[in-house]
Amino acid sequence: MPIIRMTLIEGYDDDTRLRLATRLTDAIRATIAAPLDAITVAIDEVKPSSYMRGRVTRTPGVPLPAPVDIVRDYLAKMEARDLAGASAHLADGFRMTFPGGATFARLEDLVDWAKSRYRFVTKTYEGFDEAFGENGVTVYCRGTLAGEWPDGTPFSGIRFIDRFTMEDGKLTDQQVWNDLAEASKG
Amino acid sequence: MPIIRMTLIEGYDDDTRLRLATRLTDAIRATIAAPLDAITVAIDEVKPSSYMRGRVTRTPGVPLPAPVDIVRDYLAKMEARDLAGASAHLADGFRMTFPGGATFARLEDLVDWAKSRYRFVTKTYEGFDEAFGENGVTVYCRGTLAGEWPDGTPFSGIRFIDRFTMEDGKLTDQQVWNDLAEASKG
Amino acid sequence: MPIIRMTLIEGYDDDTRLRLATRLTDAIRATIAAPLDAITVAIDEVKPSSYMRGRVTRTPGVPLPAPVDIVRDYLAKMEARDLAGASAHLADGFRMTFPGGATFARLEDLVDWAKSRYRFVTKTYEGFDEAFGENGVTVYCRGTLAGEWPDGTPFSGIRFIDRFTMEDGKLTDQQVWNDLAEASKG
Amino acid sequence: MPIIRMTLIEGYDDDTRLRLATRLTDAIRATIAAPLDAITVAIDEVKPSSYMRGRVTRTPGVPLPAPVDIVRDYLAKMEARDLAGASAHLADGFRMTFPGGATFARLEDLVDWAKSRYRFVTKTYEGFDEAFGENGVTVYCRGTLAGEWPDGTPFSGIRFIDRFTMEDGKLTDQQVWNDLAEASKG
Amino acid sequence: MPIIRMTLIEGYDDDTRLRLATRLTDAIRATIAAPLDAITVAIDEVKPSSYMRGRVTRTPGVPLPAPVDIVRDYLAKMEARDLAGASAHLADGFRMTFPGGATFARLEDLVDWAKSRYRFVTKTYEGFDEAFGENGVTVYCRGTLAGEWPDGTPFSGIRFIDRFTMEDGKLTDQQVWNDLAEASKG
Amino acid sequence: MPIIRMTLIEGYDDDTRLRLATRLTDAIRATIAAPLDAITVAIDEVKPSSYMRGRVTRTPGVPLPAPVDIVRDYLAKMEARDLAGASAHLADGFRMTFPGGATFARLEDLVDWAKSRYRFVTKTYEGFDEAFGENGVTVYCRGTLAGEWPDGTPFSGIRFIDRFTMEDGKLTDQQVWNDLAEASKG
Repeated sequence: MPIIRMTLIEGYDDDTRLRLATRLTDAIRATIAAPLDAITVAIDEVKPSSYMRGRVTRTPGVPLPAPVDIVRDYLAKMEARDLAGASAHLADGFRMTFPGGATFARLEDLVDWAKSRYRFVTKTYEGFDEAFGENGVTVYCRGTLAGEWPDGTPFSGIRFIDRFTMEDGKLTDQQVWNDLAEASKG
Repeated sequence: MPIIRMTLIEGYDDDTRLRLATRLTDAIRATIAAPLDAITVAIDEVKPSSYMRGRVTRTPGVPLPAPVDIVRDYLAKMEARDLAGASAHLADGFRMTFPGGATFARLEDLVDWAKSRYRFVTKTYEGFDEAFGENGVTVYCRGTLAGEWPDGTPFSGIRFIDRFTMEDGKLTDQQVWNDLAEASKG
Repeated sequence: MPIIRMTLIEGYDDDTRLRLATRLTDAIRATIAAPLDAITVAIDEVKPSSYMRGRVTRTPGVPLPAPVDIVRDYLAKMEARDLAGASAHLADGFRMTFPGGATFARLEDLVDWAKSRYRFVTKTYEGFDEAFGENGVTVYCRGTLAGEWPDGTPFSGIRFIDRFTMEDGKLTDQQVWNDLAEASKG
Repeated sequence: MPIIRMTLIEGYDDDTRLRLATRLTDAIRATIAAPLDAITVAIDEVKPSSYMRGRVTRTPGVPLPAPVDIVRDYLAKMEARDLAGASAHLADGFRMTFPGGATFARLEDLVDWAKSRYRFVTKTYEGFDEAFGENGVTVYCRGTLAGEWPDGTPFSGIRFIDRFTMEDGKLTDQQVWNDLAEASKG
Repeated sequence: MPIIRMTLIEGYDDDTRLRLATRLTDAIRATIAAPLDAITVAIDEVKPSSYMRGRVTRTPGVPLPAPVDIVRDYLAKMEARDLAGASAHLADGFRMTFPGGATFARLEDLVDWAKSRYRFVTKTYEGFDEAFGENGVTVYCRGTLAGEWPDGTPFSGIRFIDRFTMEDGKLTDQQVWNDLAEASKG
Repeated sequence: MPIIRMTLIEGYDDDTRLRLATRLTDAIRATIAAPLDAITVAIDEVKPSSYMRGRVTRTPGVPLPAPVDIVRDYLAKMEARDLAGASAHLADGFRMTFPGGATFARLEDLVDWAKSRYRFVTKTYEGFDEAFGENGVTVYCRGTLAGEWPDGTPFSGIRFIDRFTMEDGKLTDQQVWNDLAEASKG
């Protein structure tokens, strides 16, 4: 039965307000066992000149791009080996960690390392999750890998999961787990 | 600069209200680039007899246990091989999927299967993430494994990640990825 | 989907707040075709020292007795010929109008007039309606009459309706229609 | 001193919002003895994309026609013997009850029955009342009848009252009381 | 940490809403030691047909001219000896009191009296203060005087303060203190 | 017709909430010509654990002492020549300016200087004004002085006004104007 009233400075588009309302609903449902139909969110908007904090008017924070969209685009560019395009999503200090604990700071190093593991790989997504926390958004992406081993043998259906952290819309960390070793072991 | 006003039927404890306010704050920060200090949440409580939806009064939904706590307890019990205790956290229809795609419905089957992989294993946690979505809460847990291979050789620092879905406080699905195969390969 | 937020100075009992919420719900349903479950009413209460209108604090208006209860009690006392008790419900200037247009200002005059119409009469209620308008509350009471004609012949099931207007909890006007003439005609 | 804050999805016309505010005011005045000037109603409107219940946006309920207007139109059409037009206001299962307990389901049957009672009849209205309850709106209409007896003698000033119940803007029941029998008796 | 929500009938210009928000902020800061950044004011506006007090819609009160602007204009016109222009700012019954307790009702009398004190005088403003109280606004204006004594000797830097009370935008009282006597004494 | 809704963390005493509501009312009346009776202020209080800004709970700012009370006490102590007591109200860097432009940083210096002007002086207050601005509170105090000239001749009814600025409840500046020179001149 919670009623959420959110006040924003006017100007956000429909999509942003819907995303806010959806996420607020989900946050409540995760915390108390309220029936879904009993959670109401209403957003009212005030003029910029009708909002003052600390005796000064304020500029509304811009809508952030959907974290999942950023991850999807990064992964698509990596799959297409568009390293320049993929790099545009990376924050300074970005690091990635791969199975076995291999870590890289540059996409080129990853590509080199991967050569000994597979000729190419494509991802089929089963789902994405977004976790919101004190340090921002974490995106999880999971599904299966298909491709060819270094010797050209094809593989497919190999489980993977990636974990991304973000800051100001840029990726700061990527962690990868998958069953490639399980599969190649056999 | 968003102001969130949440109305609850009175009776929730401090901890639940703080958790609600924290999660609402995080949901907003994930959506618009508002400075943290500009996000205000205030919760007001009304008497049960002061709330009516559809012309009838309502009972407030009970606070849900923190999803991470459920997962922690389940994992601790599994580590201690307290299968009965761990089972108490499982929903009907619970399934788990392990590296290589092995799936189990019963904890006993998992234990049997694991015997060929390691003598025992303990987990050191690096972090937990909670994702709230249309279908409830997903909990991620990651860190490193230590233990002994079947031949008694010790191992440690092996990366893992677990993904749990929940329904009404019970675990419905567990998916596990780790670098055990990477490590044992070498 | 209307959300009603009502602010009261604290101190009203559960019953009054529930009655307020119910009546607000009904008023909305009579005006827009909102599904019942979509109408939410929440009442918050502020301390007397937290409410100021026109720079002065205010005393909350006392709860009014339920209009239907007043009418019920008046009618019960009339039926029991407790004229003194019934009179306590009447405002100065009370008037009543009976079938054929007979009007009375005093209950005694009504009783005299009624003698030629029936020996006694009792009321079975089918329902009450309360209408709230600019000039206060109007109560309707309808059902059937049973009793004896002046010659002692019994009658029953004769339709009646009474209309009452009120001011400050006192009855100011009563209008009566019934089928006694229809019945006695035959 | 009650303050009512009502939140609607935007789009209702002035007339509907004024009717809502008026009816909310009347509902409060009928419940607590607040001075009229101390009852404030303010309606704020949110965009359709700013309202979510149960994680989905909602369509605002359409304004209902004023119940009194429906009754007025029905009665006018009956008086003009426009039975087709009057029928358009009737719900399936409509029933009417007339003095003496005569009940009809079809307007034609009423017209036949009435022939033995008067040649024609017109209504002069003294007032209408609307009662809002759990089962919707009840409309009362009262005033005087004028017309001609079957023998052509004129009559006038004969008291009547009609009670209508409605569902979704259609009349479900009409109950009629009047003093025709009183008048014709003499 | 106070959150102020103010509801106005729509139509006030940006400047008026900003002035309202500023003054509300200042009033709070004068009363509780809240950090400035913790005081939030948001103004929402409702349609004229969405506001009802005492069952009738209301016309919003017009914005009042800034009290300081009225005082500035009055003083400028006095300095320019535009007595007609200055008079336009005076309420009926206006009175002014000057050093030594000399009181005048008409500007002409003040001008006559001042002739024995100085040939002319101009004001340099150091600051204005506005005090809001039960009886409206009080404006203080302080700074220094420059001009010539009756014998033509120049003077400057002489401290003064004026106190004005207002009603409906007209000056009702002026009280003047200054150091002219201190200065001329020597 | 403005409605003010103020949300505080619970715990302020009646007096503080009344003072807040009064000052908010006065601030509005100084800005728009709303009838006094149309200005409503309602304060709701939330639990400390129900308020979060920037993801952390907050401690409510303590109520500030009434500025006028501080000034009254300071002036009373000065009149009684309780310099230690008066000094307790002074901020570091306090300065005072007296007629003719004499400025002092220490109360003792003022007392010495005053000896040549009067033997003693007492104040009769006509009124106090409080002005709230960006830099805090300014208090004005005005009335008449009585006492004895250095030669023992009594005087009375001499107009004065004092202006005080404050910071965190301590006086930072005092400016004094009066008609002593006017009076002694004659």
